[in-house]
Amino acid sequence: MNPLAKELNDILAGTLAEELLSDYGKRMYFPKGIISQSAEAKQKAHKYNATIGIATEHGNAMCIPSVFAEFTGDLSKNDVFPYSPTAGELPLRKIWLQEMVKKNPSMAGKTTSLPVVTGGLTHAISLAASLFLDKGESIIVPDMYWGNYNLVFTEQREAEQVSFPLFADGKLNITGLSETIDAIEGPHVAMILNFPNNPTGYTPTNDEAARLVSMLVSKAQQGRKLLIFTDDAYFGLFFEKDICRESLFSLLCDAHENIFAIKGDAATKEEMVWGFRVGFITYNSKGMTEAQYEAMVKKTMGAIRGNVSSCSKPAQSILLKGMQSATYHKEKEAGIAVIGERYRLMKQVLAKYAGNAYLTPLPFNSGYFMSFVCAGDAEKLRLHLLDTYEVGTISIKNAYLRLAFSSTDLEEIEDLVRIVYQGAKEVFA
Amino acid sequence: MNPLAKELNDILAGTLAEELLSDYGKRMYFPKGIISQSAEAKQKAHKYNATIGIATEHGNAMCIPSVFAEFTGDLSKNDVFPYSPTAGELPLRKIWLQEMVKKNPSMAGKTTSLPVVTGGLTHAISLAASLFLDKGESIIVPDMYWGNYNLVFTEQREAEQVSFPLFADGKLNITGLSETIDAIEGPHVAMILNFPNNPTGYTPTNDEAARLVSMLVSKAQQGRKLLIFTDDAYFGLFFEKDICRESLFSLLCDAHENIFAIKGDAATKEEMVWGFRVGFITYNSKGMTEAQYEAMVKKTMGAIRGNVSSCSKPAQSILLKGMQSATYHKEKEAGIAVIGERYRLMKQVLAKYAGNAYLTPLPFNSGYFMSFVCAGDAEKLRLHLLDTYEVGTISIKNAYLRLAFSSTDLEEIEDLVRIVYQGAKEVFA
Repeated sequence: MNPLAKELNDILAGTLAEELLSDYGKRMYFPKGIISQSAEAKQKAHKYNATIGIATEHGNAMCIPSVFAEFTGDLSKNDVFPYSPTAGELPLRKIWLQEMVKKNPSMAGKTTSLPVVTGGLTHAISLAASLFLDKGESIIVPDMYWGNYNLVFTEQREAEQVSFPLFADGKLNITGLSETIDAIEGPHVAMILNFPNNPTGYTPTNDEAARLVSMLVSKAQQGRKLLIFTDDAYFGLFFEKDICRESLFSLLCDAHENIFAIKGDAATKEEMVWGFRVGFITYNSKGMTEAQYEAMVKKTMGAIRGNVSSCSKPAQSILLKGMQSATYHKEKEAGIAVIGERYRLMKQVLAKYAGNAYLTPLPFNSGYFMSFVCAGDAEKLRLHLLDTYEVGTISIKNAYLRLAFSSTDLEEIEDLVRIVYQGAKEVFA
Repeated sequence: MNPLAKELNDILAGTLAEELLSDYGKRMYFPKGIISQSAEAKQKAHKYNATIGIATEHGNAMCIPSVFAEFTGDLSKNDVFPYSPTAGELPLRKIWLQEMVKKNPSMAGKTTSLPVVTGGLTHAISLAASLFLDKGESIIVPDMYWGNYNLVFTEQREAEQVSFPLFADGKLNITGLSETIDAIEGPHVAMILNFPNNPTGYTPTNDEAARLVSMLVSKAQQGRKLLIFTDDAYFGLFFEKDICRESLFSLLCDAHENIFAIKGDAATKEEMVWGFRVGFITYNSKGMTEAQYEAMVKKTMGAIRGNVSSCSKPAQSILLKGMQSATYHKEKEAGIAVIGERYRLMKQVLAKYAGNAYLTPLPFNSGYFMSFVCAGDAEKLRLHLLDTYEVGTISIKNAYLRLAFSSTDLEEIEDLVRIVYQGAKEVFA
């Protein structure tokens, strides 16, 4: 093991984080090589700095002018062309944490690691899986989940996904999760929870969230060591009053020494910049010190450096400028309101089909999507809708059909739903 | 194993690629999930498309206006906000291949896979390592190499780096590489070759390149199965006439059925967009069919999707616009010329110190850097230069000192070199 990895492990000694690290996670370190020598030079090399691995002229990044011409004058060459730091732009990491605490009042006064910039939310999940999941280990994933988890957990990490039904009687299946935790052997239990959920568009009610957290804390009290990854991709897209508007991560912050919580979130959907590839990973566990959080950040930086070196600089600079605009919050709310209007119309229209024999909507109250339970092969229905009506939908596990109201204009919703029910009747009757 | 992985392996059956794939590489596939259903819908869902996992309004990506304001009017919302395809923007992949063939005339008439966009060159190396290197396997790496290989090969893949001296008597050590290949047990031999080299700034002469290729082909003829990754990060920065201006990948294209060549290259340094994070991975092996290259692309896409989902869209769109500009080639050449001028001055200045007892320049003729062999502890010299002269340099393995002429202005070079020699005398005398 590299001595720098050992140093970090020594700092983490006795923490739950250290106990839960994968072999790879234990081996991870941030090298004292070119990057850290360059950082030193940035501080001290006031005369000449011959460390920099880019091309500069008089302190500014060189560039191809035709490329620079695609940016507005608001951005300098040094805003868009040099490498971003391995952990991301510091001002962006700080503003992201500030906003996180504003959006999640339960985090106030609690400490976490400073969010590390990742190349999107998938990257945050993939990094966390590398750092914490070993071959053959289990991770609990609800039965309604984003299919890409398969590539990360099953194929990349060779972990075993343990499933439980997300819903029981149209409500969040907290008992199911509790029993699934109990059925996992050994002290460690890893899980990923994604609310608002893809594909169902479900967020726990306030009451469900409180009971979920209390159940998880009770497991921790019983001695189970919980690794809880919250996939907050659709955070903020809350369309009902009584649902939990905080991240589960926030509610788990400092909840118990036996809980290590990892928040994966992203500008992707929260700031409507899907293609930018800017996500974040943030850690919390009760009792962890600043130095221990910093050690986890260093390990994460090592994992990033050996995978993608660093994340997109222009994306981070542009996002930061946008977030610093005086009208940013108002503009963001306006976008959410547009999707909210579609959500409400979708609810109204679906109500007319209540009791339909072929399609039953799963509970939804947030996010981008709603899903139907199909009375037959959902893939067959998808193909029928596509070929007969030129209507695109997503089939999942041949059992569910997902509609995105995020990308359906308001005036299309009623007719879209009509066609989907019509098609279902034709295929399933 | 997922049936889709088996399908791809069946297509690849009998190829060297299939034989060389790691366990992970064999398991990789591109899922027929949301992404491929969305792609179908894009073709056929002319009425309503409710598959799209972003927010749209009347067919355009929604956005926060303050973020969009950072782009010029030349770029539409759909140019910068939606997800990029998993393998990257098709027009960019095509133009990159066209340019690659222009820059590497030996590739003319030979087929390769279509380059797949990666999040920079590190990502290309990391993907290739995942797809082709198993725990405990060897990979040959010259003794002068980019330190980040350690995180990729040793820590991420747990492969064994087998070293050989890059130079012998001031020339490329082809015999050393040949002997190192012979010493590897088993039929498979993996290696990574990086020219122009970091940290030395060395590119083989035309004669050396020809002999290197001929040596590699002779190993293939003897039945060795070679996986050759060419790290072309600094491609194009050639400052001497008699050096090989083609990628080693180009010279290895279709060279022998027992050679599988992987080209890792990037816009990063070639187009001076370091922070964009746009790289490419391209495959060639003699006799591979279009369908087989496509199967390798699919596996690579699976590896990308389970790691970062996709790469930065605005970076790709901006790069593409820049590359399509009428003045792009001229502007690019102008940038290379600026670095070339510094290179030539560096050579002139160093000539004055020929025979110096403390610092001996290693051969260099290209790239961003030159390195000295130190007559003492290079790290001690680095710290001395930094603390006493406020001059930043990079020390490598305590034995070498690297200077970047890419980031040193022309008027600074003479004085920089003077200070470095002065410091070396003070520390090593």
